[in-house]
Formats: sequence, structure tokens, C-alpha cells
Amino acid sequence: MDEPITTYDVIVVGAGYAGLTATQDLLKAGKRVLLLEARDRVGGRVHTQQFDDGSYVDLGGAWVGPSQDRIYALARAYGVETFKTFDTGKSTQFFRGQVKRYKGLIPPLPVGALISLDRAIKKMNRMAKAVDLAAPWNTPNARQLDSMTLATWMEKQMHFSVARQFFKVAAEAIWAADPAEISLLHALFYVKSGRNLDTLMNVKDGAQEERFVGGAQTVANRMVATFPEQIVYNTPVRAILQTDEQVQVVTEHVTYKARYVIVTVPPALQSRIDFQPLLPAQRAQLIQRLPMGAVWKCYAIYDKPFWRDQGLNGLAATPDGPITVTFDNSPRDGSQGVLMGFVLGNQAQAFSILSDEDRKRAALNAFATFFGPAARQPVRYLDHSFMNEEWSRGCYAGVPGPGLWTTLGPVLRQPVGRIHWAGTETSDVWNGYIDGAVRSGERVAKEVIISDE
Amino acid sequence: MDEPITTYDVIVVGAGYAGLTATQDLLKAGKRVLLLEARDRVGGRVHTQQFDDGSYVDLGGAWVGPSQDRIYALARAYGVETFKTFDTGKSTQFFRGQVKRYKGLIPPLPVGALISLDRAIKKMNRMAKAVDLAAPWNTPNARQLDSMTLATWMEKQMHFSVARQFFKVAAEAIWAADPAEISLLHALFYVKSGRNLDTLMNVKDGAQEERFVGGAQTVANRMVATFPEQIVYNTPVRAILQTDEQVQVVTEHVTYKARYVIVTVPPALQSRIDFQPLLPAQRAQLIQRLPMGAVWKCYAIYDKPFWRDQGLNGLAATPDGPITVTFDNSPRDGSQGVLMGFVLGNQAQAFSILSDEDRKRAALNAFATFFGPAARQPVRYLDHSFMNEEWSRGCYAGVPGPGLWTTLGPVLRQPVGRIHWAGTETSDVWNGYIDGAVRSGERVAKEVIISDE
Repeated sequence: MDEPITTYDVIVVGAGYAGLTATQDLLKAGKRVLLLEARDRVGGRVHTQQFDDGSYVDLGGAWVGPSQDRIYALARAYGVETFKTFDTGKSTQFFRGQVKRYKGLIPPLPVGALISLDRAIKKMNRMAKAVDLAAPWNTPNARQLDSMTLATWMEKQMHFSVARQFFKVAAEAIWAADPAEISLLHALFYVKSGRNLDTLMNVKDGAQEERFVGGAQTVANRMVATFPEQIVYNTPVRAILQTDEQVQVVTEHVTYKARYVIVTVPPALQSRIDFQPLLPAQRAQLIQRLPMGAVWKCYAIYDKPFWRDQGLNGLAATPDGPITVTFDNSPRDGSQGVLMGFVLGNQAQAFSILSDEDRKRAALNAFATFFGPAARQPVRYLDHSFMNEEWSRGCYAGVPGPGLWTTLGPVLRQPVGRIHWAGTETSDVWNGYIDGAVRSGERVAKEVIISDE
Repeated sequence: MDEPITTYDVIVVGAGYAGLTATQDLLKAGKRVLLLEARDRVGGRVHTQQFDDGSYVDLGGAWVGPSQDRIYALARAYGVETFKTFDTGKSTQFFRGQVKRYKGLIPPLPVGALISLDRAIKKMNRMAKAVDLAAPWNTPNARQLDSMTLATWMEKQMHFSVARQFFKVAAEAIWAADPAEISLLHALFYVKSGRNLDTLMNVKDGAQEERFVGGAQTVANRMVATFPEQIVYNTPVRAILQTDEQVQVVTEHVTYKARYVIVTVPPALQSRIDFQPLLPAQRAQLIQRLPMGAVWKCYAIYDKPFWRDQGLNGLAATPDGPITVTFDNSPRDGSQGVLMGFVLGNQAQAFSILSDEDRKRAALNAFATFFGPAARQPVRYLDHSFMNEEWSRGCYAGVPGPGLWTTLGPVLRQPVGRIHWAGTETSDVWNGYIDGAVRSGERVAKEVIISDE
């Protein structure tokens, strides 16, 4: 091991939105900060892929919506504009071999199923209101809610299988996980964390309402440009050694020294770091219990958003995958047409073993089913999953299974000596979203500043 | 990275019973084998702690019972004797502040609760019979069974809360996890894997029927003594690099080369190894979804097994923890008295943050409650949890939450190129037990021999 070469107040591990925000806030407070990033770019699970012609797509986090105040504030501060996600025209539903078009939020389902679906959504919103966001384990009846899966609740709540099927489409789009994997308590926490289920599902007034001009990584790029000397790229952290007085952060070639370290990488990846002394038992158990979600994003890029001419908004939903949800992700000026389709949960797992060619065929088939044969002739097709990326291994976020929140929940944000934790998984507001990552960065910076007083 | 210094046919990672068995079988087949072990001992989650006076306790896996044929065969082959776990006399139940003694298997509970408990056990045994052990995802109704927790099933099955409480005591002793965390399909798989629920719970005719003279690590010690040149201790594997022709196994000081590698460490720890190329998405997701169970073993050692004089067998059960189950773990000749108490699941998590002194006090209080004030004066007290050990981080085994078996189950044993997988988590018979580890070692050795033909 090399000798420490310099000493910082704080070392931040991971230059996603949590790490960037923490770094920025600590620098503002006059701290000496070093930001270590495993990749050759900032943004973490937010990655804007640029093309030669100036166009781009967001491979990871992409949208922003009402009440996501902290990421909006950053965007404003760094002069990044946002624009409305296109949603003019009719939505598309594909079910039992039939394509149906409809206006508004109510899909063309049998009335019994519709009522059942509507009741389930309202009931979940009602139940979510009772959650203690800052301490989900203190929610009334927490143990009971945490002992069952979201799938069990759906089964009990909705007697119409059609209702359950469409609820599942929405749930998978929200969590990138099968309802069987998700604790009901976590689902309720997450719903409240993002206001309510309608906000999470919708474009208008919802979490998909707007996008960033230049892509969602633009704010991150501008943030790091204000402290280019503080970041070291291509430098995965291998070990964190802690004494009463300091922390040493070991990378392949250099060992850095600081008084505090902030780890912002997702819990599931924290097990890759060699902590000395060992992480306490509870933390070691916690990070085994927050598996990353499973999702692919499939992009087809056309020379124009042809579906708009047919009065379609580019939104589609179907319980028959692999792609179950689509969005119009065209640039603001509509100079190109971009369809984005999600493959989610179990279907994302299965999608992973297809060849490049088979994934493309499956995705274009789906787009053609929803929007007509023109969808088969994109200028460009690409797809991406963070499951294949070494420094994420899944998206959108760590998903607590049943039993986690009520036993190890309090450990999630609890510092281990001089090691503090951030990342969207640690946020009580907009958990799992970019805004949650920003909030966690703000919270952890304050935490370290207080510890350092 | 250092240059490879030598070439093997197979490198085995981890010298628990899976790795030792695989090594032994591959050597018998004439292969050149290297066995790499992170610890300074063999046995993995089986660790016999020796004391100066010649006595010992098993900190990890300890018992052996009917139909665990493969570990029995090894014990015979290596001349290790087994002996009956002491169970003569009355069992103890502590419930609602009352100690009750009883003979046989039926605890002194209200008759309604007893009937409810009995029905639940029988029902679970019936349901388990339908499981496809080799492919749990092909079990009739697998998706449905895998979408709910064991806790949900218990809630639906048993209307008496007393029945549920005692069922929970048994379930936690079997899985070292809260029923809220466990997939019902996994519970059924596991029950069939170990014959039935009665076998898993019981001493007589059950999985706790016998112990090993000299402790459960004795067989492992004798196995490795037959190939002392093949093992390297204190050598954690940091990376596994694979090409079409070979595998390089990177440790701190030396890189070893082989045609195949067998990884026997629990899935949750596999994420600590740097695989190049990266593990495929499905495997990366799988190993995030098999968290290790949570358990403490508390040992009080007395100059004699004083409870036997009172006609007690040393077995106790209570829903009021921290210790919920005890066993008489005295040596065969009764020359000392050894009580072993389990702290399990959520209570094991909470136990982890107590001081050494508080854990001891809590354990001796429990023993005194069950067996009288003499229990407060042990010659020696010790406790242990594999949650605190870097190369296990939990026990007994990886516990699949809901949704795992039916989506990623087929990936569990699937080789990744030249990398093969073993460990008790990969066994279809006696999964989670020493016998399952041995079986997985036998299976993987055959698998590699066939690949190598």
C-alpha cells in the first residue's frame, strides 16, 4: 500500500448527484474535499449518451417533475433549462392482441377492472399517507406492512386480474422490480416519498413531466466544472481504513487521507469495498438486502416523431412485454423522433440473455405494434441496462424486500465512525430519484459539517 | 498484477465442506488442483473452537441427522465418530412469564393453538411434497408461491396468534431469518430439501440428532490433511480473469492460472471478487438477492450438565427472546455441561449492538429462566456470530426473498464460462446444511470433469 500523499477534510466516494452535491456544499463551507469516481464521467446512474449529430438520449435517470425542488434548484443555479415531456394526443394500450387509443388518464378497460384499479390506487395513496417518512419503521402497523410483498397486497386488493395486470405495469415502471420482490411498507414509503402514486405514474403533474435540455447529465457536468481540481476519475475505491483520528481511502495507485469519508455508491456495491475495521454486523447485513432494480431502456430514433402526425402522444402501456411502457423522448424542438421503451423487473432479467439482434427485434416489434409499421425503420436503435455496468449493477435503485425497513432501517443513514452514507437510497423525499440523490448529498454535507465542529 | 507462476487444472475458491469435497473428488480423478482459502483454517461456516482443557464447541454448523448421507459417508471415510444429541427428559417451554416442562414433541399450549400449529406443519409438509427440488421454478403454481412471504402464509394459515408465535420460533431456528424475509416457495423447497418440517425441527430422527466427536470441523481437518500441499491459507481471491482458454485467479501476492475455477463462497460474498469480464447481468443480480441469515450462538459451559439431574433434556423454546431455542451441547461423556442458545433473525440483528457484557447477561438470564439459577454460574461463557466474520457475514446460508427462485433460480448453478459454482446454497438436497455443501462439492467436481473431457 502506498503512503498517503495528502490530507483532506472530506473524501467523497462517487460522483453521481449525491456525491456532486455533497462536494459542492462542503466546498462552499470551506472544506478541503476530494471526490473519487470509478468511472470516466460524472452522473452515476444518470448518463446522457451524446451522438455525433448533436442529439442525445438519457440512458439512466431522465425526468424531473413537481416537488422535485432540489434538482430544479440545481438546474436553475447551473443555467440548465427543462422542457415539458411531449404528451399531446392519444395514449396507446395494447392488451389481448388489441391496440386501443384513448385520451386522458383512464385506460379503455372493462368497467369492473377500472373500478378495481382506481380503488387500489386510491387505497394505496391513503395507506401511504400514514407512513413516517423519516422513520418508516415507526409507521403504524409497520411490522405487518413490512411482512408482506406488494404482490400479496395487490392480490388481496384487486379481484379483477385485468386490474392487477395493469397495476403491475405501473408498479414495475415505478420500482424496476417485480411486485413480488417489494415490501409493501417500502412501496407505501416510496409512494409518499414521491407525493403519491399518481405523481409517480404520470407525465402531466407527475415525475415524468419534464426533461433537461441537453440531457439529465448536463447539471452534473456543469457542477463538476466548478471544481475540476477536486475530482479524480477512473479511480475505484478498494478499501477504507479508519482510525479514531482519520480515514484512509485506498485506490489502486494512491491512498488518500481525510478526517471524514462520504460513501455515495449504492448499498449493494458497498460490499465491494474492503472496510477496516470491518463494517458492523448490522450494516454488513443491510447492504446484502438492498438489491438493485432490473431495467432496460430501449431507444429507437427516427427522423421525425411520426406518431404525433397520427394524434398519438407516444405513451403506450401493455402487460404483454418485453416492453411494457413507452414514452416520447424526442428533443424539445421535435427535430427527431425518439421513442423510449422500458423493459422491467423479471422481463428485464430475461431480456438480458437475448442477443443484441434479438433485443432490437423485440423492441422494434413492440414499437411497431403500438405506433405502426413506420416504427420498424429507425435511423438508430440502441438499448442499455445499468445491470451490465460494473459501478451500478442495476437501476433505478436498491429495492428493500420484506422485513428490511423494520429491522435494519435505522442503520441505513447511521454513520460508522468517520464514514457517512449518502445516495438516493438514503433519502426520505424522492427516494430512488435524482432529486433524492441531491437531497441526500445536502443532508450528508450538513451531517459532516456538524461532526467536524 | 504478478505473473502467473503455475498452471492447474482446477482452482477451488473456499475450503469449507463444498470446496474440500470438490478438491478431494478432483484429486481422485487425477486433476491438478489448488485450493485457496481466505482464512487460516478449513471448514468455512463450520468452526470448532478448541479450549486448552481439550473441550470444544461448534461456533457454526454442528449437527448431523438421518438422510444426510454424504456427510455421514465422509465422516465414516475419515474415521470421525458421531454421537446422539442428549434429549432424555423433559423439554422446557417459557411463555407469558411461565416455565412449563413437557415430555415428547407436543408443547403445553392451549388446545386450539396446538391444533392450529399441527395443521400448519402438516399443510406445509404436504405443500412441500409438490416442489420440484432440482428446478423449484417448475413447481406447480411456483409464481404464486414465490410472490408471498412465509409470514403471509403463516398469517393466513394460523388463526391463533400463539400458534403463529411458536411456528415463528421454529421457522427462525430453521432459517436464521424472519419469516417476513423468506419466500414461501423457498420455505417449501427447503422443507423438502431436508425431507420435511419435522425432520428439520427435531433432535430424535431429525437434523439435530447427532454431533461429531471432536466437533463438526474434524472431518474437514482430516480431509485437508490428505492433501496438505494443495491448499494455500490466508489468501482471499481478489479477482478472477477469464479468457476462452484459461482462468487467472488473482490474490494479493500471487496470480494462479488454471483451466477451470470453482467458486464455493456464499453468493453474497461473490460480489467482493472482481470478475473480468464482468459477471453477466443475471448473475450480478442473483448475488445481490441471497442475503446471509442472521444468528448468534451463545454457549454457557458448566462443570456438569446440572439440568439432567432435574430430569431436563436441555431443550427449551420461547417466543420471548433474545434466546428462543436451546440445546444440550455437552460432550458425549457428559464430563462438562454445555448449553447452547440461538438468537435468531431480527433478534440476532438487535443482539449485535449489545456490549459483550450485555449479551452475556441476556444469555445467562435466559438459561437461568429455563433451567434454574445454577445456569448463572458457568465456568465459561462465549458467544459468536458469523455476521461479524469477514468471509461469511452471516449464517446459516443465503436466504432467497420472494421472487428470486422463479426469475433467477436457473442462474444459481449455471457456470459462467470456465467458472463453476458450489456451496450449500446450490444444493437441491439438504440445502443450507453441511450435507448440502458436501453434495454441491460432489456435483461441481463431476461438472468440471465432464467439461474437461
